[in-house]
Amino acid sequence: MTKLVECIPNFSEGQRKEVIESLAQIISEVPGVILLDYSSDTSHNRSVFTFVGTPEGAKEAAFRAAQKAVTEIDITKHKGEHPRMGAVDVIPFVPVKGMTMHECIELSKEVAVRISNELGLPVYLYEESASKPERANLATIRKGQFEGMAAKIKTPGWEPDFGKAEIHPTAGAVAVGARMPLVAYNINLSTSDIQIANNIAKIIRESSGGLKYVKAIGVKLEDRNIAQVSINMTNYEKTPLYRVFELVRVEAQRYGTGIIGSEIIGLTPMNALIDSAKYYLQIEGFDDKKQVLENYLMQG
Amino acid sequence: MTKLVECIPNFSEGQRKEVIESLAQIISEVPGVILLDYSSDTSHNRSVFTFVGTPEGAKEAAFRAAQKAVTEIDITKHKGEHPRMGAVDVIPFVPVKGMTMHECIELSKEVAVRISNELGLPVYLYEESASKPERANLATIRKGQFEGMAAKIKTPGWEPDFGKAEIHPTAGAVAVGARMPLVAYNINLSTSDIQIANNIAKIIRESSGGLKYVKAIGVKLEDRNIAQVSINMTNYEKTPLYRVFELVRVEAQRYGTGIIGSEIIGLTPMNALIDSAKYYLQIEGFDDKKQVLENYLMQG
Repeated sequence: MTKLVECIPNFSEGQRKEVIESLAQIISEVPGVILLDYSSDTSHNRSVFTFVGTPEGAKEAAFRAAQKAVTEIDITKHKGEHPRMGAVDVIPFVPVKGMTMHECIELSKEVAVRISNELGLPVYLYEESASKPERANLATIRKGQFEGMAAKIKTPGWEPDFGKAEIHPTAGAVAVGARMPLVAYNINLSTSDIQIANNIAKIIRESSGGLKYVKAIGVKLEDRNIAQVSINMTNYEKTPLYRVFELVRVEAQRYGTGIIGSEIIGLTPMNALIDSAKYYLQIEGFDDKKQVLENYLMQG
Repeated sequence: MTKLVECIPNFSEGQRKEVIESLAQIISEVPGVILLDYSSDTSHNRSVFTFVGTPEGAKEAAFRAAQKAVTEIDITKHKGEHPRMGAVDVIPFVPVKGMTMHECIELSKEVAVRISNELGLPVYLYEESASKPERANLATIRKGQFEGMAAKIKTPGWEPDFGKAEIHPTAGAVAVGARMPLVAYNINLSTSDIQIANNIAKIIRESSGGLKYVKAIGVKLEDRNIAQVSINMTNYEKTPLYRVFELVRVEAQRYGTGIIGSEIIGLTPMNALIDSAKYYLQIEGFDDKKQVLENYLMQG
């Protein structure tokens, strides 16, 4: 069975179309890689690419794109709303087919070593690849952003996992790691009151004591005049979609509010949805690997 | 994108292990074909094989298996509970990847022509391939079984679609056609009263005025001492699982009974489950083709 890994590198450039296109081009040209999607946000001044590939292809594409970013993007000149610490800011790898998390962690470390050796970029391992618990969370590593990293990287306990304790003068630093697939999942409420969405977000998210593997904030959808609980699910196997959905429903009832719909943004692994179907349909003893036809069709 | 078709041929032999194994062997040996599963029932005296393959591979494997069945199985000597009209009784093809139903119908006709020409078997096209509405349903074609086919095939309106109006002396006749994937879906009730399961089955099935594309009977699960509504869903896109599940729940309430669980038997396409997740999670504007990661992984 062919092993496949997904990679979702983030770059601190969302405005210069020719740079963004050159990154897309470089990724697409690597054998064994399929560029699935890329999008840029001009106010964030950031671009996100999504590709899948064989382990060898994905490593090569991630490296070549990082190399291009180091050449083309000067982080000292970067202005944008999104927090960042490097030209290539973060490179997550996700095991998607025939690959264990352990193998994906090893793969991420190989890319990290090559980036630090050949590009002179200091690398922090994060998420599942993190060398210490406090480095699992990207936001903790990146705190202080590029402007603060020159000093932070020399602070005891914040030396990089690979490379010298010194930022790259124009490319900063990068986080590389393996993680579970993220599911971006939003739940729309039958109210326009963002305070209700904020209250519910606070109840469900891990950081304020809610469900583990859930990040959430309240947002207002101005065009539809409704409030939304905007959610990132960082491990849909351990905290499934239906559990978040039902908890939001229960908490919304306190305000006489309901759920008018939900949205999945971008890509999701099929199991994130199949798990919820199994819950609601009360399906007993179902073996995803053996009973879902598509799992055989991917054996090529 | 590689096109893939599933084929689920049924043979009137469920007892002689060497014949069953030789059929499995012949299917497995065809390039471009993966034999996923096969099972035999001795009281039915019948075996069912499931394989997927490229269009060319699937056609070849279906033909070779039919050829072997004509050589090895004498339908005049067949005794078993399952209705049958031929040594190879029915050969359904299901489009599973990169293939339209129209293409699958054409493929089924190519196999039908070859079987009739080279094996001298009369072929009835059925399901989506049927030449007349009354031939869509296998049970209608097979009515009278092998013993009645010698006369039925000469009756005006029942001439075969391919081949002479005469049964093969030892192999009878065969039905070949394209169809949607079947989902075998059972719902277990919190009662041991089979009469309740029978009443609910009658309400939900198409033949007695219920939901289109639903076949259902009540059965008793002796080992668990519960009644079950045993269902075949012949088009999960048009009548989805959640609708059947919720209708059974509503009807069970009349008897003060509930659903303790459900089961999917054998293989299901992922979309049969994803559709239900979308319903219960109230997911808006989700594009399965573009948003389910596995749909990209199957592009090879």
